[in-house]
Amino acid sequence: MTELHSTSDLAARVRHLLDNKTKPLGALGRLESLALQLALALGSTAPRLESPQMVVFAADHGIAQRGVSAYPSDVTWQMVENFLAGGAAVAVLARQHGLALTVVDCGVRHIFAPRSGLVLAKVAPGSADSTQGPAMSAAQRDEAIANGRKLVQSLPGNALLLGEMGIGNTSAAALLMARLTGLAIEECAGRGTGLDDAGFARKLDVLRAALQRAPSAAAPLEALADLGGFEIATMVGAILEAARHKRVVVVDGFICTAAVAIAAALEPQVLAQCVFAHCSAESGHARWLRTLGAQPLLDLGLRLGEGSGGALAWPLLESACRILDEMASFASAGVSTRSD
Amino acid sequence: MTELHSTSDLAARVRHLLDNKTKPLGALGRLESLALQLALALGSTAPRLESPQMVVFAADHGIAQRGVSAYPSDVTWQMVENFLAGGAAVAVLARQHGLALTVVDCGVRHIFAPRSGLVLAKVAPGSADSTQGPAMSAAQRDEAIANGRKLVQSLPGNALLLGEMGIGNTSAAALLMARLTGLAIEECAGRGTGLDDAGFARKLDVLRAALQRAPSAAAPLEALADLGGFEIATMVGAILEAARHKRVVVVDGFICTAAVAIAAALEPQVLAQCVFAHCSAESGHARWLRTLGAQPLLDLGLRLGEGSGGALAWPLLESACRILDEMASFASAGVSTRSD
Repeated sequence: MTELHSTSDLAARVRHLLDNKTKPLGALGRLESLALQLALALGSTAPRLESPQMVVFAADHGIAQRGVSAYPSDVTWQMVENFLAGGAAVAVLARQHGLALTVVDCGVRHIFAPRSGLVLAKVAPGSADSTQGPAMSAAQRDEAIANGRKLVQSLPGNALLLGEMGIGNTSAAALLMARLTGLAIEECAGRGTGLDDAGFARKLDVLRAALQRAPSAAAPLEALADLGGFEIATMVGAILEAARHKRVVVVDGFICTAAVAIAAALEPQVLAQCVFAHCSAESGHARWLRTLGAQPLLDLGLRLGEGSGGALAWPLLESACRILDEMASFASAGVSTRSD
Repeated sequence: MTELHSTSDLAARVRHLLDNKTKPLGALGRLESLALQLALALGSTAPRLESPQMVVFAADHGIAQRGVSAYPSDVTWQMVENFLAGGAAVAVLARQHGLALTVVDCGVRHIFAPRSGLVLAKVAPGSADSTQGPAMSAAQRDEAIANGRKLVQSLPGNALLLGEMGIGNTSAAALLMARLTGLAIEECAGRGTGLDDAGFARKLDVLRAALQRAPSAAAPLEALADLGGFEIATMVGAILEAARHKRVVVVDGFICTAAVAIAAALEPQVLAQCVFAHCSAESGHARWLRTLGAQPLLDLGLRLGEGSGGALAWPLLESACRILDEMASFASAGVSTRSD
């Protein structure tokens, strides 16, 4: 009860501070609720975001062999190289906002030369095809989760921005959404990187086959091994560990939401640490966010992944902290209050 | 025809660049259309935003005496002091994003001591009460517009962010919206800084009286003198001048939109230079943006004004330029293209 009491006490103090800033009550809208969330997440009336870490979790997917993506699997490792070379969208945006960028090989079907900015945490070279059997074993899933926890322990700062790369991973995320929410696969799956009508119909057929293969694996960890990819499993560990350390977790799009949904199914208090950066154009995302009670900050029709939406939203988190810390109050600035 | 040809040629070159960046076609959504707009506005395939200027236009309104705001008129000059002291929201956000901040006294009912960051361009100490007669004379309106033009000529850089302050100015903006669009005042006016039901009903009565006094003043410049405030008129001049110099104009909320609507009614090509930062919670704003064909970047329930929404959206403009300039292409990064 002590923690509960101190949380509601902190919330009341933050609301009082916000309400006395030189602006009409609530006039900064979503930025005020974000400031309150960050204050509670970091346990301070003057939260400061320190050493923000953008981590891109990468892996390949056996299900990609079934033709569920507009791009070949090789794009996964090629994009990892592009992240490390600084030419990908998330690398450009991370540079703009001073976000440290780490890429994690969680299970890419490629052997990378070790180098700065790359963490090698490969469970296997790609998950198995989930239309034929589980995407990974329980031991592999647990290894990936442990890798994610270890990674976060090694990172400084109090903010983790989630990113991902993996040809086929909107399929894995849609399967997890269908399994976790009970919604029909048509409500969950979208066109990913840009499938045409025929490609999308094929993707839906493949996803139905994967769900029918093992209709009983509904518990979150069971579903994760059965349908999920190594980057999603590694992210689950990272999210759980970040939340345990009361860090802020910035959630990008559809695939990151899959990892958050599993982590939150295991430990519901995770959600209080999560800031949902944007609502993606991937069709199931808006529905999943509503299911989770999440209020995304941006709605820019993004469907790139990589953490690009998280990076774009980042300055809003900084703004929310500054509003709380730097704005004058009516009393300190000598501004008159309401006349009614 | 030469310019038309070169504009469509530039657009085609920018689209080609965007389509060959290492991302699925269109996957950066609104950021891509923003990059295209900035390229066309600044006339370059690698647009760069230079020395961005946040300018807060301030004035008092005679109509405020009729009880149309939750705050007394003195808040206008008090907030000017707060902008200059760095404690207001727009000052905090301008600092965060490296935006130079200038406050312009366009017609505040107060005598300010001259100082750095403050431009004295007062036409009169507050506009007249537009329920009783025109808010300003034609000569005053022209003086304000000329002041706005002169101000922009004196500012460096290629980006102007509009901000405003003036107790009563959502009333002036709503009157201008009703006059320019022909919509009923109930479709235009909102609760401003936070009127309750009784206050809002009173505001609507006052606004109806102002519209009935001179129902014929429908031409943009005539409406501006009849109903508008000095900060709106000064902004109109600033927008026209900024557009003439092919600068980017970042439009904040409802009151800035009023100034843009008048400027665009005079010179339609102004709109191509305008980036609409956000859709405000002031109820008429979304409707007015639709009327103007504007696609706002943010939707955060803001209703503060000051330029706060423009400052919050600013990093997205920077991101759009960086995407165009810094992202690798499929060819340069050695990433495979679509397999279909």
